[in-house]
Amino acid sequence: MTRNITFLSGGVGGARFARALHSWNEASGRPFNCTAIVNVGDDFTHMGLRISPDLDSVAYHLADMGDKGRGWGRANDSTRTMSEISRVLPEEGWFQLGDLDIAHNLMRTQLLENGHSLSEATRLLNSRYGVSFTVLPATDDPSPTIVEHTASAPMWFQEWWVRNQANPSPTAFAFPHATDSKPAPGVLESLATADIIVIAPSNPVVSIDPILAIPGIRAAIAEAAAPVIGLSPVIGGRPVRGWLDRCLAVVGVECTAPAVAARYGDRSTGGLLDAWLADPIDENLPNTFAGLITHVPLLFSQDEADNRIIDALMESVTTLTNASKSGLSV
Amino acid sequence: MTRNITFLSGGVGGARFARALHSWNEASGRPFNCTAIVNVGDDFTHMGLRISPDLDSVAYHLADMGDKGRGWGRANDSTRTMSEISRVLPEEGWFQLGDLDIAHNLMRTQLLENGHSLSEATRLLNSRYGVSFTVLPATDDPSPTIVEHTASAPMWFQEWWVRNQANPSPTAFAFPHATDSKPAPGVLESLATADIIVIAPSNPVVSIDPILAIPGIRAAIAEAAAPVIGLSPVIGGRPVRGWLDRCLAVVGVECTAPAVAARYGDRSTGGLLDAWLADPIDENLPNTFAGLITHVPLLFSQDEADNRIIDALMESVTTLTNASKSGLSV
Repeated sequence: MTRNITFLSGGVGGARFARALHSWNEASGRPFNCTAIVNVGDDFTHMGLRISPDLDSVAYHLADMGDKGRGWGRANDSTRTMSEISRVLPEEGWFQLGDLDIAHNLMRTQLLENGHSLSEATRLLNSRYGVSFTVLPATDDPSPTIVEHTASAPMWFQEWWVRNQANPSPTAFAFPHATDSKPAPGVLESLATADIIVIAPSNPVVSIDPILAIPGIRAAIAEAAAPVIGLSPVIGGRPVRGWLDRCLAVVGVECTAPAVAARYGDRSTGGLLDAWLADPIDENLPNTFAGLITHVPLLFSQDEADNRIIDALMESVTTLTNASKSGLSV
Repeated sequence: MTRNITFLSGGVGGARFARALHSWNEASGRPFNCTAIVNVGDDFTHMGLRISPDLDSVAYHLADMGDKGRGWGRANDSTRTMSEISRVLPEEGWFQLGDLDIAHNLMRTQLLENGHSLSEATRLLNSRYGVSFTVLPATDDPSPTIVEHTASAPMWFQEWWVRNQANPSPTAFAFPHATDSKPAPGVLESLATADIIVIAPSNPVVSIDPILAIPGIRAAIAEAAAPVIGLSPVIGGRPVRGWLDRCLAVVGVECTAPAVAARYGDRSTGGLLDAWLADPIDENLPNTFAGLITHVPLLFSQDEADNRIIDALMESVTTLTNASKSGLSV
């Protein structure tokens, strides 16, 4: 019997989860078919390059060529090209890309120019890299995240996040093109045929929300036969990566694991999740999430120790399945 | 009194001429204002990069950062990015670009994306590189050279020249967008105010013809007050660079210095040139060109020895000027 895991993913946190799942899967002797549905709200065109930061972080980690320290970019990359740009035209040197990363972006750009869709270009490049997971953009249509604020004109996500270091303070994140976008081929199918659906420990506001904004994806998760398990991107009240706290503030959500779980909501009351994995440091915080909560250290060590996270994920699936079989609500 | 030299230029040969003129000029103590009008028929978009090979060869040589051996690209460049592309997606690795060259192309692409014209982007980048000449694209409008042949669909110039190594044999070179193009700002003015106009030893068919095809440029040269001197790109019946012989064959011209001079034609009979510089090796070939012919070794050594070429150019200008003053036809 085929076993399928589908997970929703942003960049760094999702990529580390993907790598942990990949390692666990390889060691299991009975690997799942794994599909990543990846945020493309961060995508933009810069210096002619069609850049998809989250797709790349996931692919690089799965091919074991990602920079583990930063969580983005290639390991052992050089910066000859960007150093030259910063020297000659410093005003255009704000988006860091290593030389190997530029190679990847040039190849994707050419494939898109050749008429391939983003999912086709991703599949072709990932097959060359030996990526065993199916990595799908949430949509092949351009659906950029727009950062709205009162200080000036709205910004593209990367302009706000990277160039302006998450300033000024936003009033909202908008996905104005989402309603005109279709899920990429395979996205809805992978959710419908999944045995397990996971929401990776990614930024819920700017990584997961842009995926859920594509028409049909939220409904496909709600209607899926598979249990849906989320991993907390907050540990001990602090964002593990990036400016998650600033993003959560924009949507009026506290930067705590229970607050993020409550925002996703439990399926019994129309939410997304059946179960939630949080770090033991947050074990004593009050929870309003009505689903199954499992505590396991969630800080990725990026070695075999991360197996415990996937083990906990599988245990929560087992608990949910047994509860379901016995007719008990968990 | 300001003294102005304006020259028409392709890539490698024009870039070497430009460098020789720059060195001679610097050493003269009384430098000319120099303006290059550069072919953009080779320009194309590849992997998202807006590539202008001839503009870059000229700028790199003038900034003394060109690769003197190849005549194109940057000196001491590395190829980390293109090596990765050739490894992962070899079908897209055919156009060689060093890492520093990619930096230059990314900067130009971003400047064009920002709304700058090609001449503005060129001026900005060249000023950062410390280029003292004014380097103008023949036109800011896209006017690609199309290679027509019987074997398949017409090709972009670089596809034919680089990817297919000048195969298959063309039936014609066409400049279909030239008639809709305007000379870039400064081009006609620089010809009108020039004290000397030079046609660099570039490929007459695929480097100079695309410049002359832009409406107004040929007439501006014909009407210019300045003497017009051409340098032979053929030495001893062989092209100094590239597939000049194949290009000349397409327009039915022998690959000899006199045949190229005759094709440009002398101004007294409606042609372009008042004078022609050819190599001494070609001194005894029969000539139909009616203007002044001066023989000087024309193979660029890319050191002080190249001063003799610029000296010969200046001597031919003096001869033309004296003949003009004395009312004699040369």
